[in-house]
Parts: sequence; C-alpha cells; structure tokens
Amino acid sequence: MDSNGVDEQEMKLVQGAAGYVLEDVPHLTDYILDLPTYPNPLQSNPAYSVVRQYFVDEDDTVPQKIVVHKGSPRGTHFRRAGPRQKVYFKPADVRACIVTCGGLCPGLNTVIREIVCGLHYMYGVTEVLGVNCGFSGFYSKNTVTLTPKDVSDIHKRGGTMLGTSRGGHDTSKIVDNIQDREINQVYIIGGDGTQKGASAIYKEIRRRGLKVAVAGIPKTIDNDIPVIDKSFGFDTAVEEAQRAINAAHVEATSVENGIGLVKLMGRYSGFIAMYATLASRDVDCCLIPESPFYLEGKGGLYEFIAKRLRENGHMVIVVAEGAGQDLVAESIEQQDASGNKLLKDVGLWMSLKIKEHFAKQRKMDITLKYIDPTYMIRAIPANASDNVYSTLLAQSAVHGAMAGYTGFISGLVNGRHTYIPFNRITEKQNKVVITDRMWARMLSSTNQPSFMNPPNGATEGAN
Amino acid sequence: MDSNGVDEQEMKLVQGAAGYVLEDVPHLTDYILDLPTYPNPLQSNPAYSVVRQYFVDEDDTVPQKIVVHKGSPRGTHFRRAGPRQKVYFKPADVRACIVTCGGLCPGLNTVIREIVCGLHYMYGVTEVLGVNCGFSGFYSKNTVTLTPKDVSDIHKRGGTMLGTSRGGHDTSKIVDNIQDREINQVYIIGGDGTQKGASAIYKEIRRRGLKVAVAGIPKTIDNDIPVIDKSFGFDTAVEEAQRAINAAHVEATSVENGIGLVKLMGRYSGFIAMYATLASRDVDCCLIPESPFYLEGKGGLYEFIAKRLRENGHMVIVVAEGAGQDLVAESIEQQDASGNKLLKDVGLWMSLKIKEHFAKQRKMDITLKYIDPTYMIRAIPANASDNVYSTLLAQSAVHGAMAGYTGFISGLVNGRHTYIPFNRITEKQNKVVITDRMWARMLSSTNQPSFMNPPNGATEGAN
Amino acid sequence: MDSNGVDEQEMKLVQGAAGYVLEDVPHLTDYILDLPTYPNPLQSNPAYSVVRQYFVDEDDTVPQKIVVHKGSPRGTHFRRAGPRQKVYFKPADVRACIVTCGGLCPGLNTVIREIVCGLHYMYGVTEVLGVNCGFSGFYSKNTVTLTPKDVSDIHKRGGTMLGTSRGGHDTSKIVDNIQDREINQVYIIGGDGTQKGASAIYKEIRRRGLKVAVAGIPKTIDNDIPVIDKSFGFDTAVEEAQRAINAAHVEATSVENGIGLVKLMGRYSGFIAMYATLASRDVDCCLIPESPFYLEGKGGLYEFIAKRLRENGHMVIVVAEGAGQDLVAESIEQQDASGNKLLKDVGLWMSLKIKEHFAKQRKMDITLKYIDPTYMIRAIPANASDNVYSTLLAQSAVHGAMAGYTGFISGLVNGRHTYIPFNRITEKQNKVVITDRMWARMLSSTNQPSFMNPPNGATEGAN
Amino acid sequence: MDSNGVDEQEMKLVQGAAGYVLEDVPHLTDYILDLPTYPNPLQSNPAYSVVRQYFVDEDDTVPQKIVVHKGSPRGTHFRRAGPRQKVYFKPADVRACIVTCGGLCPGLNTVIREIVCGLHYMYGVTEVLGVNCGFSGFYSKNTVTLTPKDVSDIHKRGGTMLGTSRGGHDTSKIVDNIQDREINQVYIIGGDGTQKGASAIYKEIRRRGLKVAVAGIPKTIDNDIPVIDKSFGFDTAVEEAQRAINAAHVEATSVENGIGLVKLMGRYSGFIAMYATLASRDVDCCLIPESPFYLEGKGGLYEFIAKRLRENGHMVIVVAEGAGQDLVAESIEQQDASGNKLLKDVGLWMSLKIKEHFAKQRKMDITLKYIDPTYMIRAIPANASDNVYSTLLAQSAVHGAMAGYTGFISGLVNGRHTYIPFNRITEKQNKVVITDRMWARMLSSTNQPSFMNPPNGATEGAN
Repeated sequence: MDSNGVDEQEMKLVQGAAGYVLEDVPHLTDYILDLPTYPNPLQSNPAYSVVRQYFVDEDDTVPQKIVVHKGSPRGTHFRRAGPRQKVYFKPADVRACIVTCGGLCPGLNTVIREIVCGLHYMYGVTEVLGVNCGFSGFYSKNTVTLTPKDVSDIHKRGGTMLGTSRGGHDTSKIVDNIQDREINQVYIIGGDGTQKGASAIYKEIRRRGLKVAVAGIPKTIDNDIPVIDKSFGFDTAVEEAQRAINAAHVEATSVENGIGLVKLMGRYSGFIAMYATLASRDVDCCLIPESPFYLEGKGGLYEFIAKRLRENGHMVIVVAEGAGQDLVAESIEQQDASGNKLLKDVGLWMSLKIKEHFAKQRKMDITLKYIDPTYMIRAIPANASDNVYSTLLAQSAVHGAMAGYTGFISGLVNGRHTYIPFNRITEKQNKVVITDRMWARMLSSTNQPSFMNPPNGATEGAN
Repeated sequence: MDSNGVDEQEMKLVQGAAGYVLEDVPHLTDYILDLPTYPNPLQSNPAYSVVRQYFVDEDDTVPQKIVVHKGSPRGTHFRRAGPRQKVYFKPADVRACIVTCGGLCPGLNTVIREIVCGLHYMYGVTEVLGVNCGFSGFYSKNTVTLTPKDVSDIHKRGGTMLGTSRGGHDTSKIVDNIQDREINQVYIIGGDGTQKGASAIYKEIRRRGLKVAVAGIPKTIDNDIPVIDKSFGFDTAVEEAQRAINAAHVEATSVENGIGLVKLMGRYSGFIAMYATLASRDVDCCLIPESPFYLEGKGGLYEFIAKRLRENGHMVIVVAEGAGQDLVAESIEQQDASGNKLLKDVGLWMSLKIKEHFAKQRKMDITLKYIDPTYMIRAIPANASDNVYSTLLAQSAVHGAMAGYTGFISGLVNGRHTYIPFNRITEKQNKVVITDRMWARMLSSTNQPSFMNPPNGATEGAN
Repeated sequence: MDSNGVDEQEMKLVQGAAGYVLEDVPHLTDYILDLPTYPNPLQSNPAYSVVRQYFVDEDDTVPQKIVVHKGSPRGTHFRRAGPRQKVYFKPADVRACIVTCGGLCPGLNTVIREIVCGLHYMYGVTEVLGVNCGFSGFYSKNTVTLTPKDVSDIHKRGGTMLGTSRGGHDTSKIVDNIQDREINQVYIIGGDGTQKGASAIYKEIRRRGLKVAVAGIPKTIDNDIPVIDKSFGFDTAVEEAQRAINAAHVEATSVENGIGLVKLMGRYSGFIAMYATLASRDVDCCLIPESPFYLEGKGGLYEFIAKRLRENGHMVIVVAEGAGQDLVAESIEQQDASGNKLLKDVGLWMSLKIKEHFAKQRKMDITLKYIDPTYMIRAIPANASDNVYSTLLAQSAVHGAMAGYTGFISGLVNGRHTYIPFNRITEKQNKVVITDRMWARMLSSTNQPSFMNPPNGATEGAN
Repeated sequence: MDSNGVDEQEMKLVQGAAGYVLEDVPHLTDYILDLPTYPNPLQSNPAYSVVRQYFVDEDDTVPQKIVVHKGSPRGTHFRRAGPRQKVYFKPADVRACIVTCGGLCPGLNTVIREIVCGLHYMYGVTEVLGVNCGFSGFYSKNTVTLTPKDVSDIHKRGGTMLGTSRGGHDTSKIVDNIQDREINQVYIIGGDGTQKGASAIYKEIRRRGLKVAVAGIPKTIDNDIPVIDKSFGFDTAVEEAQRAINAAHVEATSVENGIGLVKLMGRYSGFIAMYATLASRDVDCCLIPESPFYLEGKGGLYEFIAKRLRENGHMVIVVAEGAGQDLVAESIEQQDASGNKLLKDVGLWMSLKIKEHFAKQRKMDITLKYIDPTYMIRAIPANASDNVYSTLLAQSAVHGAMAGYTGFISGLVNGRHTYIPFNRITEKQNKVVITDRMWARMLSSTNQPSFMNPPNGATEGAN
C-alpha cells in the first residue's frame, strides 16, 4: 500500500507505558467534525438494564499476544468491541446495507440474520437493505428489504440468502451507489479480497467526506485471515470433514492395501486439514500448502505409502487443496494440454499419480478411493458454536458502526471481540506455522515423514 | 446358459391350477439320497414356543406379481423362506463360512453379524469362519473365527469387517478349499457377478456330490438385482444421497445461474438417482442409464438448462454414474488420450461440457458445482430400516441352509421373504422401466424433457 | 357399525372365481347419476406421454394376503390406486381443502405439499385451501390458500404447517362449512379417530347428495392402522429411536449395574418398540402393550433384570408407552392421588418401581437412566424413504378423488398403492401379533422372558 | 480449607513488576530433593525436530484477564503447559493410571485415549493402567491394561470405557493402593468434587513423600469450573441440545397456544441453557439457576407466557435443571410426600404447574410438551472441536506429569493451555454472571422479562 495521507490516518497507533501499543480503528469523527451524538437506545432496553457496566469502557483493549514473561513488553492491543454509551447515528436515520461476497461458508446466513436483528431489536433501526450477488449487486441489481421476519429462519439453511459472487468490485460505482441510495452503514461479509475491496470503499467514502460507516465481517472457511482467533464456519467445516475422513477410513480398511484420499479446503492454509486430522485420529498423512512434499525417492510419499500399507494394510491421506501446487503445475506442463484442466485439482492428480506409480511398480496392488467433500462441507448450516460466534461478530459490527467506528472489521482476539483495522487482516495471510507446536502435534499423531530432505533434484518427474 | 443337465435340475418348476407356477430352489436331497433329518432346535427355544405355526408350511409360496385381475392366471411363485420343522444338519456338525465380494454397501456388516448370531443363537452352531477379502480369500488367506462377541458391534460401522475384493473367482480352487476345510455351509454376500460365481460353486459342489449348502445374499447398492423388492443398503443410500443434493441446491441457489450437479451410484440402473430425486424435490433434472439423453439442439440438455436458469436462476441435476456412457465414449474418442481417463466419469465430463458450452455461448455466465458423494454414501452404516432388513435376509439364509436348501438366494418378494434360484437373479438386471409409472412420477416432479426426439444426427459433437 | 343403508352401500363387495373378493370403494356415481366425465389432463402431460399403459386398468386389484398355497382361494382384493383415463372433475372447477388432525408424525408436511403439487402440476388445479388446527378449523378458523410456492420447502421441516388438534369433530358443522365454501374435494390426514370422523363426513355428504370427494390419508406414527403395509413416518420414527437406544446403551455400559430405560411411542401397538429393538441389537428387553408382563416373582421383570445385570453388568429396556397399563393403574390406585399424574407415564413409573425394588433388596446397587425421546422423534422431518412414500400416498389420493372415488383412504397393500374403504381401517387396530414370527424374532434377539407364566396371583403388589 | 503448611506450599505465588502475579503449581522437587532429570525423549522424535522452540520456556505464563487498559496492572498469570526440556521420569520407570469419576460427558474417551497414546507415542511409556468405575475402583476392582490398540477407536463412542461412579473417595485407601501398585503418575478425570478428591490424594502423597505426580483433567458438561475458558464436552452438549430445542419449536408451532419446554443440564450454572438459546434463536424464555424467577403475578412467568402466546401463538422455554429450585422445594413441601420425588425435576414440576395454571384460568387452552434430552446429550461422542480440545488437554497433562509437576489441572486460559493449582478450580464455581454482557445478549435475543421485581411476597403459592 502506498503511503498516502489516508493510510497514515488509517493506522491509528497509540503508545503506552511498558511497551503497550494500541492499533486503533478509524472513526467518522476523524474526518467529519462536529458530529452530534445520541444516547445509546440500549440504555432503556430492559434486557440490558440489569447489566452493570454494560457499555464498553473507552479504554478497554485486548492484547494480541498472551503468552508472556514476567518482564516482557505489553505488546500490541486492539480496541474492544461492544456497545458504547453514545452513538453517532439516530436510529431513525440509519439506512444500512449488507452484502456477501466470495465462496460459501457456514454461518453466512447467521451473520446476515444477526445484523438485521441486531440493528432492529437493539437499536430500533428499521431500514436494512440486502445487496444481491456480491459487490456487483451494488450497481447491477435491485436491493431487497430485510426485516427480522425475512431472516428469522435463514440460519437453519446453508449458503447465503443474498447470493454471492466473486470479483465485480468497482469502487467508484459502488460508492456512487451508496451515496445515491443514501445508505449510511455498509456491512461487508467476505474474505481477504473482499475486505481489500471494503477498505477501498472506506477510503473513497472518507475521501468524499461521507457520513457512512463501513464494517467488515471477515469470512474464510479456510481460517486464513490473520490476527483473529478463528473465522466463523471453520469449526463447522472441521466437524463436517469428519464424515469424509470416516468414509475414507471405511473404504481403506475394507480392502487389501486400501488408500482413502480426502481433499479438504485450504488454498493457502492447511488449517482445516490439520484440525480435521487431529480430530479424527484415523489419518495417516496430512499434506498442506505450508509444508512442501515430494513423491519419489527416499523420504517421499510413495515410500511412506508403501511402508504404511505393509504395516497396517490400509491408510488415509488428507490433502489440502493448495498442497503440492508446484508438483501439480510441473506435472501438467510435461503433458499435453487437453483434458488436463481437471488435473489442476490436486486430489484428482494425486489419485492418478499414486495409482500409476503402484501399477508401474507391480509389487503391490492398491485400491485408492478419492473423496472430495468440498461443496458438501461449504453448503451446510453453521453448527451451534459457529451460530453463537457469528451472532456475536454481527452484533459487534453493529455496535461499532452505530458508535461511529468505520474502516474496521469485527474479530475475535484471544477470546474477546475487538475492532481491527482493515489493513491488519489484508496485508498477509494466516498460515499454519510448521515450526510451531500445533503442526508438531499433528505430525506426532500421524507419524508421517517431515518431507524435509528431498533427494537431490527430487521432483515428481525424477527417478 | 446352456441346457445341460444341471441347469434343468436347477430349474425346479411346479405347476398348479389356474396358471399357478412355483419356481422352486434346489435341495441337498436332490442329489444326495437318504439324508437324515433332525428336529429343528428352535422347537425348544422359549422365544419361539409362544409362536403358533412358527415353522413355515411346506406349501407356502409367494407370488411374484400382485397386481391382478378377477380372471388373471395365478402366475409365478417362490418358496417362502423361514424355519422348517426338520433340519438337515446337526448343529454340532455345522461348519459354516461367510464371504463378502464386490463394492461396499451399507448393511454388509449387519448381514455378517446376523448370520453368525443366527447360527449361534437360533441353531446352536458354534463354528463359523470368515473368509477375508472376497473369493480369492478362500485359497489365498487364512480364515478368521467369528463368534457373536466378535461381531457384536460391527453393524454400527460401515464397510465389511471381512474385507472384500472384485474378481478372484476360481471355482475349483474354491470348492477344493471348501472340501479341505470341511465347510458344509457357504454364505456368499455379493452382487450380480458374485452370485454367478456362487452358482458355479453350487454346481461344482453338486457335481462332486458334497453335502454343502450354498446360500447367497444378494448385495447391490444400485438395486439392480431383479425379482426382489429391493436390495439391502439401497434405502440408506437414497437417504444419504439427500445430503449431496441439499448441498448442490444450496450452492446453486447462492449464486446467479448456479448449477449443482450430483453424480449418484447406478452403473446400469438409475434407481438411486430416481428415488433420491423423488425424495428430495429439489432436483430439476435426473439422468439415468435407462433413458438416453443428448446435449445439443432442440430438446437437448443445454437448451433445458438455459431455460430453467432463465426461469428460476438456478438448477440441480442428478446423474447416475452409468448415464450417457455413449456420449462420454464418443466424446473421449474425438480427443487425444492423455489425461482423459478422468473423463470417463460422466460427472466430471458433464461438468466440463456444460461449462464449455456456456462459456462458448457467451450469453449466460453460469457457476457449476460438481459433487460426487459415492464413497461417502457407500461407507456409512445401514440405517434402521436396512438393519432390520439385512437381519431378516441373513436369518432367512440361515434357516434355508439348515433346512437343506442350496443354490438359492434369500430375497424379499412382495414383502415376504423367499428363496429364489440363482439363475433368476443373474440372468438379467433390474432396471428402471421408463415406460412405467414410477419414472413418469419422477418426470412429473422435475418437469424435465423426455429427450425422446433427438434432432437428426444429434450427438454431442453435432451442431 | 349398524347395518343401515349407507353402510351396506359402503361395503361394495365384488365376487370372482376361485374365491376372489374385491372390497371396493364408493364412487360419486353411486349416488349422483349422470355425472359428466372429462379426459384426464395427464394425457397431454409430456412426462406421462412416454408411459405405456399409464392409466390404471379398471380391473386392476391387489390381493390382501400373499402367502398362498397351490390350492388356496384367491382371497380379498383392493382396488389399485392411480390415475384413470377419465376424471369426474374439470380442473378449473375443483376447490380442494386439506386438514391435518391428531398428533405429529414425520411426513405430514410432505403429504400436504404433494397434495398441493399433485393437484397443481398433474391436474392443473389451482384452488387448494388449508384448514388450520384440525377438524375444528373448518368452522372456527379462516382457511389459508396453498400454492406450490407456499409449500415448496415444508417437507424439510417437521410438524404440520397447517397446525393440528385433537377432537373438534362436528359432522354437520363441518359439512355445512364444506358446502358453504363450495369445496368439492376434502383431503383428511389423520389417525384412527380422524378417519372415523372422515367416514362420518363422507356419509353426511352422501346423504346430502353433494358432489364432494372425501379422501383420507391415514397417519399414525405407531403403525397401528390395519390392512396397510405401514404408515408414513413409522420408518423415520424407528430410525430416530436409535439415538435414544444408543444413549441408553452408553449410559448403561458406563456404570456398574447400569440400566438404560427408553420409552417409545405405541399406545396400543408395539411396532416402534419392536422394530427399534430389532434394528438396534443393544436392547435386552422389549415390553409392548400386546404382551403383558409382571414385575415380581419367578419369571418376572425384576428377576430378569437381576440376572442380566449379573451376567453382563448392564442392560437396556425398551418399553412402549402403552405397555403394562394394567400394572400402572393398579399401582396408582393403591397410593394416594396427589402428584401421581406423572406416574401414568409407564416409563417414569417403571423407573421408580425398579429403583425402589433394588433399593429395598439391598443386594445390588443399580443406576437407572430413563429416556423419553417421544417429542424429539415425532417432530423431525421425514427421512428419504418416508418422503417418497408420503409423496406417493398423496398422489394416489389426488388421482382417486379426481377419478370420482370417495369415502376411501389411500394405502399401500403388499407394496402396491390401493384405495381402501374407511371402515376397513377403522374397525380394528393393527397390533403386533405375539404368536407371529416377527415377535419371535424379537424375543430371540433379546432372549428376554416370555412372561407367560405369572406366579399365582402375581401382580405388582404381590409377594 | 485450613491454613496448614501444605496449603501454603500449594499456593506458590510469584510476584513481578507492574502488578504481575504468577499462581504457580507444585512440583515434585518441592518436597523431594535431588531428583534426577532426563532429556525429553521428544528431542529425538522426528515429528518435533522441525519445531523451533518446541519446548516451553520456563518463564512462559498466560494472563488470566485480557481486557486491559493502558495503565492497568498486569494481573494474575498461570504457568504455560507443554513439554519441557527435561523430564523427571525415565519412560521405562513410569507406571501411570487413569480414572474417570462422576457423570458422563462427551470427550471422556478421547481424554483417556490421548493420555494413553500421548504417554506411549510421545514418551515411550508402556505401562498405563485403567482404574474401573471411579475412585472406589482403586481399592475394589482390578485394573485393566491400556495400550494404544485398546483405545484406538474409543473416541468414536460416548461414555467412558473405564466406567465411572460418584463418591467412593477414601484418600488413604487410594494412596495405599497407588503405593502398593507402584503407580507414579495418576491422571484423574472428573468434576469439582472429583478434583477436590484429587487434591486430597495429592496432599497425602506429598505428606508421604512419594514420587507420584497427580494431574487432574477437569470434566464438567455444565462448564461450571472457574478460571478455564470452557470445559471439554460443553461445545458438543450445546450442539446436541439444538435437536431438543428444534423439536420443542416444531411441537409448539404445530398447535394453537403450543408450549415447548426443554430442560437442559446445569445444576448450578446455566451455561448450556444460555448458549443453546443463543445458538438456536427459537427460544422465548431461558431460565437458569443464577437468575431467580417467579411464576405468579405481575412480571411473572405465567404472565409472560400468556403474553407471548397471544402475540405469537406458540413459545419455547428452556430451563436449566438447577433453575427455580427454591420454588420447587417450597411447592413440594406444601403437598404430601408420596409420588413427589419426580417433582424435584424442575422440568416435570414446571410442566404440571403451567398446565394447572392455564387449566384453572380457563381463558387459554394450552398444549405443553416437555422434553428432557439430558441423557441423549451426555452420551454422545465428542464433536470434532471437543475431540481436538480433549486431545490437547490430555497431552498437556502428560507433558506436565512427565516434567515433574503435580497437584495441577490441565486447563485452557485465554486460548492457551496452562497448569492451574487444584485449589483455584475447586474453591468456587463458574457461574453465568447475570450482570455481564453475555446474559444481556441472551435476554436481548429472547426479550424475556428480567424477573427483577417480584410482587410483594410473590412466591409460587401466592396470589
């Protein structure tokens, strides 16, 4: 990102004693002066009247790191999420809109539902619009009206009731549209790329000096968004992945030299594969993008497969969709192009390679069954834990926007809901750190090779 | 089958008045004279003592057809299954074996469990052996001992505890082995091809004059075995297929012009696809092997997809794995060979073709998600209904073998358990009759085209 | 029922050769002369054009019994269900209504959905009304309009979208209302008592000479309706009951002398308990209304519990809600009345009795966990098999009413859909025949006592 | 607890700058001098060799609170869990035992499995014993040997493979037994009371000067153990509770004035009820032990029920088992004793009271269905998230014991695994703080009354 004025303003750093740093989020008053405030309507809500200190203290922050030492500096903090004593919007003036972008993820409908219900029941906001089919819906579709009744059962269904799409981001057309429709709160649910788009929308709104709060709710089934504890839907995905792994295990154990191969989501990050492996205990090998592997030669996958089959007679392999992409690319290049689109799928590619290898070897007859549960996982409704989590993320976003914060995403940090500036979650991806303890736990549970010492020049085509 | 002596003996036809025909099954006494009989031990079992007429009457038969007219002939009947007053084996002399062959199917473990428990608890038989890994296990593997304790929980797991394989049938080696191990009851669980093998084993045993009963329990998740009402595991498969169809529906409805494509089992018969479609009501088009279809031109699939997307914005297609094999074959021939193995999968092939078509047309941007839940369906345990059904099939087989019947399979006909000669279930396949009412019900539920009038010369490559 | 004219007319018996009897259903033309007929609109429906002999032959019947002998008489038959060549209603003239009565049952919403969709898509009928909250809704509630869109997703939810109630039957007010609202097809979904009400409505309509077809779809989760193979929802109930039995098994096996007690539905008939027991294989004792039992003394339940706990350390008991009602009544009478309402629940009563007995005996410390899953079973949506079954029952009812039949219920007999006169299903209940083979299979699977020889004067209070 | 020397030693407090406090756990070297150490065998484990800084730094601690201010003191910390560079047991010398106590909870088998597998695969420990049936098993039962093979599939089953019981704690007999059997690591899985027992065992072992590490894994499905983020099994319980709430919702919406009443676990703490309510969104009223309520009069439950039924026609009430115990007690006292045991169940009691109230009022006919899913929830296996969590808790306990820590429990604090001294988790219970934000969120989602202003003298019997 270039270092223009906006970016500097965006990074609102507050320093304290003992190495305390607060990475704050923007506020409408950063660029609009003399905004009036209103008492938070929750003050007269009987549900909240019993709560002592219901409103979040302006000074409340949450540290990013929590393993500390006696003498360690206090580190980076984020602003705590929650309702504020004063709000910057009169409920009757609010005109909010919600948009969902990118791939499906369990919990999307819960987030939509709870933004609508949160605005309505907590703040008395009645005008909420749904933007259909992602960013492009801002300028190419009619909006739909969203009332609590419209959304009352949607959390029991998978997918997104608003529809979604990839791409379609056109900052100025979107902001024109926001301006023309007199929308003053924009809730954007989507992943990495979507939040970059949200950031651009926020900057353009700020450039134009509009009183419009932009709040992001980060969505990534892969859990590849940094800073936050986990993304909504991830838990449900890991849970549902167990079905596929169980099936692979049954298939593998019901034949001689049976191999069950399961591809799980994770283009850049192997979290689903790793946690699904840890939860299942039936997996013999887990391959993720962060940990390169190789097929041939000493210490390679073929050797490990042969060893495990000789020992146990069967095995289960879990592969994240983004694992081994270098091998796949190299392999496809070597062959001619027709029909090879399918082989970009690492699961199909590995199926073929493993079958070919053992057919060529003629020493061991294997039976491999490949399972790709991706769409069956993405499309289910959120489980209870993700429903609660999505609910709180949505409510935090609503509290934040009502309180005049903007250019922020709502995220859980160390178990507490916080507001995080866009740039902190879009500047890099959350990845499995393979020098960390969790990956070691995974390796220890599978006893798979570390693929650390590829034979000289070992690649897919070698040997 | 050629009309040698054995085959004639095998077809034991009994004629009665008013067009009554009984297609009987062989009995050990057909070729071994003066076999002693013993009272059925169930007579002294307290559980059965309360039952009036517990033992099946020798004359009990079950008609194959049951839609009749006032004046219609009485038709073909089968012998009713169940315990007989007299048995032809002393329990202490029985040495039974069980083998499972072919692909996985929910209920395999229940059938194994209930043969073991039925022999043990109903007849006091203690020697039951498991043959591992299908037919070839007879001569290449050690057997395992099966007691009620060994099998007590296996019905809660998918797959087969004995392992399975395809092929490996070698009649004389198998019968040698049966003879050498002094096995006198052989329970063979498997599909079409397996039961042909079972028939050959029975004939060879008969040729050698051995007192060995051969009983088949037909297994086919596709429900493609004729005569019987349905095969075990089919119900579970239809149930589990709903998950995939639901996911396809969610994916399709969450984007513009979304298509969810689900491939279901059914190499030669589209029963799973048809019933899963009827159960779901979310399917717009169901393609099965019995009903040819075409892609291009008037009345073709592309046209229907475009129409349905224009009307509803989304659609779900269910395709049985054996559908459109002529189109697939033709399509692959036209291209070069490399990498095209994958395209033999009609689901992957259709995914590519549909995407290519709409990309070429440039009129409609579609998003297609392809789901293949095959192994996730096959590998689950039987549901309650299939558990009860598998239990009764196994018990019927045990009663039949104990009563000296051989060369039979245990099957449900018009809701009653019967013994059916091998040849009746191996001579042809059960198929969806597309001139029958059930298919019409399916068509009526989807309103899909009948694909009855392909344009002149219309093939995949045409137009 | 008294032998007045209507009843005689209702029993339309047709005799044929060889002991053939057809128990036919009434037809509008039985009491209205010169009704015009119309060609069935399905003739021009492309879905049905491919079907040979799509329309049911007037002579098609289905036998009630199918275990036969060479020389046995042909027996009782019912009219086969399905579309007829001619219909007695012009689609534009049809004004249908649907009502659901009695307790919840999986599949109610599917039946509603498919009556609406069947009338709409197969016959082009557009006026379908829903009567809310059971029979009393006819005269005390507004009706709701039902279109395919209104019902498109309801089969995925449990319960009934129309609401239901018990009682409220007032024949003349209901028929007045039918007449006033110009309804000419009445679909009544409910159990035993409801179908008696439906029969009274039919008779009154006939007495008034109205051209109104009355069709019943029998609903009973307990499967206690006679003649038909099984009732919709039963399969789902047996499946869902497995959860409760599994939980009871886990609770029982996790402590010393653990007893898991599960109460299942079945006021008069023990089918759910029996099939759930057969499907589970974890049950040690299954108690149903049809088979009396006693607690104390030799051969009693307490003795069996003590024995099974000594042998295995744990046990699972399944009790149908209607089992042991005589014991419960006797027990409650002996005590004073306050608070004893709860004890009418045989499950709670047995829990207390068993705990008291073993506490008094002081020989064995037991831990009993009681599970009542009734409402969790009733309230789930139909599984795939019940969805298909409910669909076909609804479609059959629609075909029958359109064809002018009335005073019938739609039911499966020997695997074929038929029309059955009301009186045949209301005159008695379907019960587990404890002198039949299925109960023996159940006894054999649990090895429980037969409770056939109560000690002299043995009752709950004795000893 | 009295302030004897042991307790003081137990509280190992370390103070640091800026208000930093570490509440440390005991170590074998606190009372045994000159214990030899050994290099951690994980150093040569290939799975861990890739991990930088795999071993936990001696100084690593985790803060208990994480909402902070710029100037707030650093607060209480706990020692971070994980493997240490040095261990105090030679693997070949370890003789570990595992015991489970108290009620069932999803995840018990996973914890057992992972202690066995952790000791075996991470540390090469081969002697692990299972103590059957809780504390009393130490002195009244044989132990069982536990190998990885014995436990390989147990995490897929509910309950505890070791059996459990309440009570039976006899410190000196247990410690005698530990000494006699030469056990030197004791893993105790159980709740509040169990961990008090574990603490007593630890103190007695310390008093005798034995080299025996005592590690607790806190188990409470109610989540009522303080300090830790959540207890294993809680997530699974909340998830499974959704079934019961869904059923209650379906029952309630299918009749006029339908009430679905669901009792959930929570004797002293309403966490399951609160989270299940938040996850479901179908609940109209959630009653927990921490928030007293009353039935009669203004602001009472009856009034709220009547209001909600008038508005919506149906409602769902969730009640934690420990809610309203004062009302129940008072109510039972007023009546005579017989048969009233059942009424101690707040769910049954409320069912009767609500039915009686509305029957007496004669203004509104209600239909109430009561669902108690307790045992169906407790008995299921852990979901994926609880499987991972239980795995890590077990591994932490193993690392701690091997490193010589004792008198500790393994627990998650702010998302990090820590070792916590026994007294911190047994001295009070974790309760829903009804002046906190989460309860306000719950109230806001149901809009139920706060029951804050009982009418003068209002009790159950009043009015």
